[in-house]
Amino acid sequence: MSLNLQTNTEHFTNPLYLESGRILEPYDIAYETYGELNDDKSNVVVICHALTGSHHCAGTYEGENKAGWWDGLIGSGKAIDTDKYFVICTNVVGSCFGSTGPMSLQHPHHNHYRYKFPVVTIKDMVKAQRILFDRLDIHRVYAIVGGSMGGMQALQFAIHYPNFAQKIISMAATYATQPWAIAFNKVAQESILKDPDFKQGYYDPEVIKEQGLAGMAVGRMAGHISFLSHESMQEKFGREYKRTDGLYELFGKFQVESYLEYNGYNFTKWFDPLAYLYITKAINIFDLGRGFDSMQEALKKIQAELYLISFKDDVLFKNIEMKKIADILSEVGNTNHTYIDIDSDYGHDAFLVELDKFDKYIKDALDG
Amino acid sequence: MSLNLQTNTEHFTNPLYLESGRILEPYDIAYETYGELNDDKSNVVVICHALTGSHHCAGTYEGENKAGWWDGLIGSGKAIDTDKYFVICTNVVGSCFGSTGPMSLQHPHHNHYRYKFPVVTIKDMVKAQRILFDRLDIHRVYAIVGGSMGGMQALQFAIHYPNFAQKIISMAATYATQPWAIAFNKVAQESILKDPDFKQGYYDPEVIKEQGLAGMAVGRMAGHISFLSHESMQEKFGREYKRTDGLYELFGKFQVESYLEYNGYNFTKWFDPLAYLYITKAINIFDLGRGFDSMQEALKKIQAELYLISFKDDVLFKNIEMKKIADILSEVGNTNHTYIDIDSDYGHDAFLVELDKFDKYIKDALDG
Repeated sequence: MSLNLQTNTEHFTNPLYLESGRILEPYDIAYETYGELNDDKSNVVVICHALTGSHHCAGTYEGENKAGWWDGLIGSGKAIDTDKYFVICTNVVGSCFGSTGPMSLQHPHHNHYRYKFPVVTIKDMVKAQRILFDRLDIHRVYAIVGGSMGGMQALQFAIHYPNFAQKIISMAATYATQPWAIAFNKVAQESILKDPDFKQGYYDPEVIKEQGLAGMAVGRMAGHISFLSHESMQEKFGREYKRTDGLYELFGKFQVESYLEYNGYNFTKWFDPLAYLYITKAINIFDLGRGFDSMQEALKKIQAELYLISFKDDVLFKNIEMKKIADILSEVGNTNHTYIDIDSDYGHDAFLVELDKFDKYIKDALDG
Repeated sequence: MSLNLQTNTEHFTNPLYLESGRILEPYDIAYETYGELNDDKSNVVVICHALTGSHHCAGTYEGENKAGWWDGLIGSGKAIDTDKYFVICTNVVGSCFGSTGPMSLQHPHHNHYRYKFPVVTIKDMVKAQRILFDRLDIHRVYAIVGGSMGGMQALQFAIHYPNFAQKIISMAATYATQPWAIAFNKVAQESILKDPDFKQGYYDPEVIKEQGLAGMAVGRMAGHISFLSHESMQEKFGREYKRTDGLYELFGKFQVESYLEYNGYNFTKWFDPLAYLYITKAINIFDLGRGFDSMQEALKKIQAELYLISFKDDVLFKNIEMKKIADILSEVGNTNHTYIDIDSDYGHDAFLVELDKFDKYIKDALDG
């Protein structure tokens, strides 16, 4: 059965009231759906994307050769089976793939927002999705699934809309972003800000896409370190050289250096630097306990069946952070959650690349 | 008793034959000594510095307020007791504190070497020190002590000059630099190279010192992540904000962000970017097994009493890397080594800051 791949954009004219007290008005939300909504609308699965992800999480568009970022997990007969489920994935506000973000045109001036764009939080991203689902006449969903920043959104849904989803699956995320992750984001932010071609936020987006932005490439390289781990790099690259004669050349390249360079510079062709600043900011200030007296009080709100998945060698959001959520839930008497720590060779990236390590678990959680 | 603090520079006109096949000629080596050489020259302790260290490892010069980088460890009555030992620390070749490096003037042209400077290796650094000691009429030493790149040098001494030192103490180092550490260096190198003020290596060193070099600051920030650890950052910074009203400002600062910013930008006032490129290169290609059939064959060469110290949460050079050296030594029948793993809250930085966790161990190793 085909995926029934479809990309849409909805336009909203009512203000989006943000956690900061500011508003976003008007705004667009881009989203994709796969599969068919059943008659009683009981088969909706929401997918939440990570920092640089988009609403295109499955399938391959005609004329393109790159499938959606979780294509291995979502599709006919796959763990998130589009023969059964109606899957929706939205691009978060603040991003750069169709939903309103810092490079969108500000009404009514038709200039890019740039730094006039308000800081958005994970809670704001979730709220905007909730509003989209209302527009689509979907008022409850079967499940919400996400990894990394997507896992943060899943948890935020669970706390702020306790009756909205029956099941929540959060992977490779945390209860509140820790300084280690903030530090990696800081390197990337500083690197972007100090690149003269960034022009203090007043760059020409076309020029940036064409020429690349070295500062963002360097920042992304730092990011890629945090997505892997000491062990995964050892296994993946060892001390292999790209050219055997490069040992005594100042810029002779180890495989790991080529990997970072390729991924860093390639990134600047498809992601917007201001969106990177805003979304890393949202990740930095993510804290499930904000607005509550304690993390306990926050987590007490959760009503959904909750599945927490961490990866043993994740150095960005450590497995102990996910375990802490499970521990607190047990403390406050929640008996409706499970936590598993998956042995993986890929660090944080595992949620994107080692699907075979957890796809059965997701299938069981959804179909069970 | 006073330290008898003294800085010297020796000039060498014979070529230094480098591992790459290239030569360095002529060259200078800057060094400091503390304490008094005894009559039979049996009390020499060599200290080896890390990436951005210098020969100034102890004492405080008149008119300065900053003590040497291992001052807590070296001095009268301290673990490395200058009442007993004659301590020598040299600035490595390739660095920027008096020994010949990429910003030295190239004989006879009197231009800075810049990229014409040859790649030097840890083995070359050690060889140059050996030549200096010969000049000083010191042909054997009591002990060699170093951490991080200094620990690499200590191990390289142990393998390539097996009869030179009676005791070797290597801390927070490795047998061969792993891709995780190379990746952090790559971010720093790329960040320096892409800063337009670096002028592709043809910067004015005075201007750089005055204005700072943002690319080097960013690179150093990445370095500082690797010097700490997830746990140490959590303990040191938590999610504290520098300004409480900064939460919803795009650039509102977490404490960890201020820490990285301060250290990053301060660094550019006192270190040279080309030296950073050359020394990180030396670290990247460090491999005790180079030139041997195997790591086993290399480590078999060691004759000295060897003390290996790692730190449990070191994320740059993992404790398992130091343990591997001990394991291989045991495999090949070496009974003259000990290995300890120290519980620390500071990650890699522990060798510089948590002296009380290991100073007794060093004292015992030296005095025992």
